[in-house]
Order: sequence, then C-alpha cells, then structure tokens
Amino acid sequence: MSGQKELEFKGYAMTDPSAWSNLTVVPFQPKNFGPEDVEVAITHCGVCGSDLHTLTGGWGQANLPVIVGHEIVGKVTRVGEKVKDIKVGDRVGVGAQVGSCLKCRACNDNYENYCPGMIHTYNHQYPDGVKTQGGYSTGIRAHERFVFPIPDKLESRYAASMLCAGVTVFSPLKAYGCGPGKKVGVIGIGGLGHYAVLFAKAMGAEVWAFTRGTSKAEDVKKMGADHVVDTNVDGYWKDLQMTFDIIISTVDHFPAGVSLRNILSMLYVHGKYITVGLPDVDEPLPSIHPFDITANGCLIGGSHVGSKEDMMEMLQLAADKGIKPWIQELPMKEAGKALEGVKAGKVRYRYVLQQDIAPVA
Amino acid sequence: MSGQKELEFKGYAMTDPSAWSNLTVVPFQPKNFGPEDVEVAITHCGVCGSDLHTLTGGWGQANLPVIVGHEIVGKVTRVGEKVKDIKVGDRVGVGAQVGSCLKCRACNDNYENYCPGMIHTYNHQYPDGVKTQGGYSTGIRAHERFVFPIPDKLESRYAASMLCAGVTVFSPLKAYGCGPGKKVGVIGIGGLGHYAVLFAKAMGAEVWAFTRGTSKAEDVKKMGADHVVDTNVDGYWKDLQMTFDIIISTVDHFPAGVSLRNILSMLYVHGKYITVGLPDVDEPLPSIHPFDITANGCLIGGSHVGSKEDMMEMLQLAADKGIKPWIQELPMKEAGKALEGVKAGKVRYRYVLQQDIAPVA
Repeated sequence: MSGQKELEFKGYAMTDPSAWSNLTVVPFQPKNFGPEDVEVAITHCGVCGSDLHTLTGGWGQANLPVIVGHEIVGKVTRVGEKVKDIKVGDRVGVGAQVGSCLKCRACNDNYENYCPGMIHTYNHQYPDGVKTQGGYSTGIRAHERFVFPIPDKLESRYAASMLCAGVTVFSPLKAYGCGPGKKVGVIGIGGLGHYAVLFAKAMGAEVWAFTRGTSKAEDVKKMGADHVVDTNVDGYWKDLQMTFDIIISTVDHFPAGVSLRNILSMLYVHGKYITVGLPDVDEPLPSIHPFDITANGCLIGGSHVGSKEDMMEMLQLAADKGIKPWIQELPMKEAGKALEGVKAGKVRYRYVLQQDIAPVA
Repeated sequence: MSGQKELEFKGYAMTDPSAWSNLTVVPFQPKNFGPEDVEVAITHCGVCGSDLHTLTGGWGQANLPVIVGHEIVGKVTRVGEKVKDIKVGDRVGVGAQVGSCLKCRACNDNYENYCPGMIHTYNHQYPDGVKTQGGYSTGIRAHERFVFPIPDKLESRYAASMLCAGVTVFSPLKAYGCGPGKKVGVIGIGGLGHYAVLFAKAMGAEVWAFTRGTSKAEDVKKMGADHVVDTNVDGYWKDLQMTFDIIISTVDHFPAGVSLRNILSMLYVHGKYITVGLPDVDEPLPSIHPFDITANGCLIGGSHVGSKEDMMEMLQLAADKGIKPWIQELPMKEAGKALEGVKAGKVRYRYVLQQDIAPVA
C-alpha cells in the first residue's frame, strides 16, 4: 500500500441507451483485490471504436450502467502480495482484457488474448459476479498479467491508445512476419490503420495505405506510408495483383457491392488478409467463393488485441523508435464529444481523454 | 526420339453437354512440341471431381469437344532437345497444370501453381491457340516443369490420382507445417480427404477424420485416422474447441444452414482452415462474421494443386512410406460410369482409368 489516499472508483457511465453519448459520473465497485492484482489510478484513456459499438448497442445491449474505455494509462496505487514486476508508483497500461483462465493451452503459450475464459475490460464480469468497468474513470484493478509497464521514454498520452488500437495491429504484423523485404497493405486509415502504417514502417516493411478519396493522403505520407492508394478510383487493385505479404484491414463496415475478391487478389502466395475491424453483429464479411482464395493460395484471418508479450514488444519498439501516434487530447468529461467525433469519422486519428474526475498526483 | 511408332492423339471426349457422361473417342491436336517439352503415352488416368464440374458445366460451359482427366501417368515417348532430367521410356506423371509463364515472381519462387498465367491441363488453351485436352486419352505433351518422374517403388495405378487429389492436400499440409506434434482435422472423406488422412499420418500428425454418418468410419480408421467424428451428431465440434493446427476441408457443397463458425472454433490460435473443395461458381462459402475468426485468431485459406517441388516430395514420401491410395480400377472406356459414381458419391475412394485406346508397350 502507498501512503496515498484510497482510490475512489467512479467514472463516466452510460445510464440511458437513448442518450448514449451523454455520460454521467457514477461510483462503481472495482474488482475484489487479489494477491496478484494491481490497482491503477488512471491518468489517460483512449477512445476506441469498441466503446462506440458497445454504447450504441451494435454488439448487443450493454449491461447498465456501463463505463467504457480500454486504452488506459495510469499510476500504480496498490499491488498484491504476489506481484513481482510492478510496484506502487509505476506508470502502467491496461488494454481491452483484464483477465483469462491462466491455465489453458492458450494461456500457457502466451496467447492469453485467445483464452476462451477471457475477461473484457468493460461490459463483462469476473467469475465472482463483479462487473468490469472501463477507463473513462478514476481507476482500475487487474491481474498483473494484464498490466504493462510503460517505458520511460514513451509519454502516457502516446502510450494510451497503443493499449488497444496499437497492439491490435502490432500483434498480427508480428505474428505474420512483418519486417524488411515484406510488403504490407493497410486498408482504412483511422485509429487502427494509422498505427498499422506507423508500426509496419518501424518494423521495416514497405507500406501501402488504402484510403477512400485523397483527404488523408498527405497525413498518411507523413506517417511513413511509401504509397497511398485511393480506393475510390475504379480498379485501384489491378496493378497490385499478387503483391502483399500482409494486408491489415481495419474496415468495420462493408458497403453493399464491395467484393473481397479484388482485395484478396492483391495478396501474394500465402499472403494474409487480416481483419481487425469488428462490425456490428448483423454485418458479416462480404461473401467469399473458394475460387477467390485458391487463385493465390491466400488466407483470411482474424486477430484479437495482443498478448502481454506482444504488448511489451510493441511498447519497447515505440519507445526505441520514438513512435508518436496522431492524437487529439480532451478532458475526460468531453468523452461524449469524442465518441460523436469517432462516429462521424472526424477523428484524426485517435482521441485521448485526460483524467478530470480525480487528478493523479 | 524413340524408335516407337508415332503417338496418335485421341481421347474420350464430351461432344454433347446434354449427355455429359457419354464420352466418345475423337482425335485432337496436341500442343505444338517445343524444345523443353515432354510427350507422354498415357497408361493411367484418375477421375477427379474437377472432371465432373467441367463436364456438367458447374464451372462454366466447356469448350467442345472436351477431353477431361488430369491425374495422368504414362511413359515418355519423346523429349525436347533442352529437356535435362527426363528421358524417353521414363515413367512420369502430369497433373492439373501443363504450363505457366515461368518468369514471374511466383514461378521463380517455386509457386508456379499460383502463376497468373497458368495453363490448365484441359478445357483451356496455349498462348498459340491450341486447346488443352486431358488424360482420358492416348497421350499428352507438356513443358518439363509440369512432368514428374515417378519413383520406381510407386506403382502407376497408385501414383495417378496423387497427381491432383494427392498433391492438392499434400501442398497445404506441407506449407502449414503438418508434422509430429501437430493436430490435423480432415473434413469430408472422398478422394481428397482420404489422401489428407494418408499423408497427414505419414507426415507424423495426429489425425481426426470428419465424416457424415458412420458408413466410412471403419475405412477411415484403416487409412490411419486416430479419431473419426460423425458430423451428423449434434454439437460434434464442442469437445474439440481450440484443438487443430490445420483443418483440410474437401467439402465442395455446403448445405443451407451449415455454419463455418462451429468448424472454425475447433482451430487453435493461428490455426488454418484450408478449403480445397471447389464448389460450382454460384456456391460461395457460408457467410463469415469477423467475430468467427477473431475469437481464436484463426485463418481461412485456399490452396491450388501443388508445385513441382511439392509433387516430387509427395511422390517420394509415398514411395518411401508405401502409401497406397484406395482406388477402383476401370478400363478408360468406362469413364462415364466412373463419373456417374463420383456424382452419386459412390466412389471408394478414387477411380483410376486404364488405357484402352492405345495400350502402351
């Protein structure tokens, strides 16, 4: 225990789905503190598309009151007696996952982000029935496996959105061999896409950014993309057949008539199209015929956030290479405004909320 | 040139799509013989599902007259002046591909089976306009890259159906790491599926065979499957969540209501569902939601026949391990009967036709 005043848990909650962006401060019960747990006083929280899907009901009805936010950075205020690598006062992050069974094959293989018993950071519950509440709040508690020390060289405001958006694209880039000599396409340049460009470049790949229209073209070049492709141009894929080792797709809404066939045709043999966008439950991927994936022997895959191993490697890479996401900072009470900005596609490229309920010393 | 009589090219052709299984012998013009070409007098030809799709129009209307068959074994009767590794009298095979550009990145990387300029063994044409005709015939000519010496220990009748069915499953098993310690599922135990069981076992994996009902269960165990799962049993996938490194799906028709979600849930993290069945053009895969592939970070992939490298490795494995496919032999004139047997799902597990137009000395 530190000598600090005990953390009071409260956060900006949705209490009425008909006014989903009108969040009000409510107290909440945190996780019952265990010997391997870490308690964090939150200083920053990124605003993720998942927050929006949850509040607007696209992934199903939320369990009210719900406090969203899973791109959390803060200062450690308490550690359980068995916690080894984290101490009070450390600057740490928490992402979209706060628990897993820690016993299964996936957990043992450092794939805890695929544990069937995973516990999401908000709108979920612990085995003892306590609801999880997210980072638009004063504090959070989590098992140390899901708490990540932030390297000194990486500012908290930059680290925050890496905890979900960043690792969600870093994990598949790493898993599928992004590096020098590899060609990577990034489809959709929002929060996730801009990270995919930043990280793929930092990992040494040649990067193509695919974006509708030209409004983001200059930005994307500044982020480091070697090529920018306007997907509004008819047949934009034709000169890129059999090119990519990896395509990261952040698209979470496919307009009617979009065909994955054209996109998949840009993959080289055994190339991977990895979808990290999660549409509403009633929006499947456009239909695929086996012919679309046998012509080049390509693969379509999904990826879910990242493991602790991914997280630590990403944060170190960001610190070493001085990677700075493009963010817009707002006080936490303006979360609703930020969420409306995400919904309207106005964000450039991630909102990060600063603590304003209980400033951290 | 050998001292043999010159090969006369003729084969069992479909001339009338309304009587697709009534094949009649017609002469045809072979490939114009080039310096890197090999000419083969055919002794055996397997009967592939592709033959059926082509004759019945499921992949589009065939260019008549069409002679199908692309699981060819025979004896070399002529080699071009630049051919190095094959000589007259050799026993060789030809599969589903008789040409590629031989210049592109894929061809240079030993992925000629994904060359955009690939030439199919039948119902296709050479750049000079000559139509390709398949192996229900007396002979075939192909560039040496697409002609494969058969190891002495492997009988022609066993080798034949390996040239398409065999390599189609061997190639992805090899590409995706099948071997000791790996768990492989095979869905659909027909020609391709029975090869997937035979090869996955020979490569050292633990093998689950998925088949509707129990009629093939005994056979599949004899083929070497460690486990047989009846997919007619409700919830058959439930005890197998997060199990497989590779699932080879040979299914080429998905009944309404079949969900890939349940099948995909059986894959372990980064596991691959590889579809080698090619349905008719109007039958896409069942629709997939990104949630179905993010839960375990799995991938859905296609695979198309195999490269020369795959082919040689497979034939050697079959020779070394004494792998014998389960086949039913018929004279070539009974091709129609064999095709009807494939259509009715009666084949156990591959028909192989023996030359009867021009017996090979």
